Amino acid sequence: MIQCPSKASLGDERDMASPVLSASGHLVAIGGAEDRTSDLEILKKIFSLAPEGCQEVAVIATASGIPDQVLPEYEAAFLRLGASHVHSLGIRDRQAAADADTVRLIEQSGLIFFTGGDQLRLTNILGGSPVLKAIRQRLQDGAVVAGTSAGAAAMPGTMIYNGAAADALRKGGVSLTFGLGFVDNLIIDSHFLERGRFTRLMEVGASNPEHLGVGLGEDAGVIIHPHGILEAIGPGHVILIDSRDLASSNIADLAMGEPVAVEYMILHAMVSGHGFDVENRCYLVPDELDALIEESR
Amino acid sequence: MIQCPSKASLGDERDMASPVLSASGHLVAIGGAEDRTSDLEILKKIFSLAPEGCQEVAVIATASGIPDQVLPEYEAAFLRLGASHVHSLGIRDRQAAADADTVRLIEQSGLIFFTGGDQLRLTNILGGSPVLKAIRQRLQDGAVVAGTSAGAAAMPGTMIYNGAAADALRKGGVSLTFGLGFVDNLIIDSHFLERGRFTRLMEVGASNPEHLGVGLGEDAGVIIHPHGILEAIGPGHVILIDSRDLASSNIADLAMGEPVAVEYMILHAMVSGHGFDVENRCYLVPDELDALIEESR
Repeated sequence: MIQCPSKASLGDERDMASPVLSASGHLVAIGGAEDRTSDLEILKKIFSLAPEGCQEVAVIATASGIPDQVLPEYEAAFLRLGASHVHSLGIRDRQAAADADTVRLIEQSGLIFFTGGDQLRLTNILGGSPVLKAIRQRLQDGAVVAGTSAGAAAMPGTMIYNGAAADALRKGGVSLTFGLGFVDNLIIDSHFLERGRFTRLMEVGASNPEHLGVGLGEDAGVIIHPHGILEAIGPGHVILIDSRDLASSNIADLAMGEPVAVEYMILHAMVSGHGFDVENRCYLVPDELDALIEESR
Repeated sequence: MIQCPSKASLGDERDMASPVLSASGHLVAIGGAEDRTSDLEILKKIFSLAPEGCQEVAVIATASGIPDQVLPEYEAAFLRLGASHVHSLGIRDRQAAADADTVRLIEQSGLIFFTGGDQLRLTNILGGSPVLKAIRQRLQDGAVVAGTSAGAAAMPGTMIYNGAAADALRKGGVSLTFGLGFVDNLIIDSHFLERGRFTRLMEVGASNPEHLGVGLGEDAGVIIHPHGILEAIGPGHVILIDSRDLASSNIADLAMGEPVAVEYMILHAMVSGHGFDVENRCYLVPDELDALIEESR
């Protein structure tokens, strides 16, 4: 049974009042542990989305506890892919997040990439900063904003920053706060299959079924195209947990720590080339995805 | 959106041609790590289902690599709960599985309990044996057959015996073989939330969407009532993955090891007192479950 409206009329039925991503650039969320030394499948795809003639890359390692290790890795990878310059930006504190030179480097870049680490460091240091405002503007103007692991989890308006998978689906087991606000109507989790994090998105979905759960496997990613079309990339999986049709849950009646019941969520597993229309909650096999992306050009 | 037929008419619409459990006894599957020393919540519930006047318990440790450790634990627990005798049965080889004295002890028992361990040892040693035939007959005649971890996974006609969660949902990542055949139309996985095994049941569901996936969390269990009504027990969760309405998957087109796409599975999380009608694929909140169980008495 397919829940979608007629796939032929997606363009007309899309609810433009709540766009997922109201920008002309692409947002790309990666589940962590993407290949950085071999085929670079995901990084190559991301780099190819940068606007023409704008081959500078900014790599932001604010989330990372080991920026001196990861920044050179990404610098080497993006140079291999043809970047004209790679700006390695540690941005370790809020002063650095207000630095005018750093803002200028962001403004020059066609691809802005967030490394992994701790998403709470990312939001705590970048929240409300000139650097973050510059990144939002770049996305608006057509640049690519990409992030892996913590850098992916932090992208939505609301993000998960803590919660062991085995403790989740118990009221309060997952900790949420404001994210970087690049995309609405989604919640993003990373290392999803490898760490068995289904319960985290189920708990969030029970707490408010409106927002789509996107669980990114390692070496997998999702391109969020303008108009809210998701496209899976990389050798791994992108799991979707759609709670919008949730029939019942006991969550509001429980004490903290008690187990949450869930009646009816919808589960998808996307692989590279498959897609999803977030507004219409419609899975797209490769032909359908290609047609929609072509149409929106 | 609720997928169920009218909940009031479940009795009439049940497809009696494919009963989940065609026995008068109860089958109870537990996800592992159930409390054996404190409140004994799950073991107490299981013991209470034994037929009146039949308080002997047989504990079968065939699956276990450490039978000398687990058998005394269960013996102590069931004696505490009021068992008149606890028969601790190691059954280490196929000769022991044909032993007439052991068969006689099974025939005397109102509750037959399988410990955890390796489900492949369970089926390899018990498959086709006189002991297994005696257990099936006891279930038919009204005894309780219960099992934890491997002892739960082995219960259906087909069982999972291997497959790391992070490797699953890649074609061939999950290894299946014949189970003990106590119940049809289900596949059971244990330690489900703790080991993030959602991908295992998704792969099985993609390979054949007909059979309901039952993922048992630790210290959680499910009573399979006659007529295929599931009842969740214990402090943990019972996850259901229902693939029957699967819309599409690439699994048949893949080489072994390639990632499996899944369009549309339904996900539920049951907690103690909640239930599920397997034939009608209908989630039952506590009032509905109680009414159905009452009605079937």
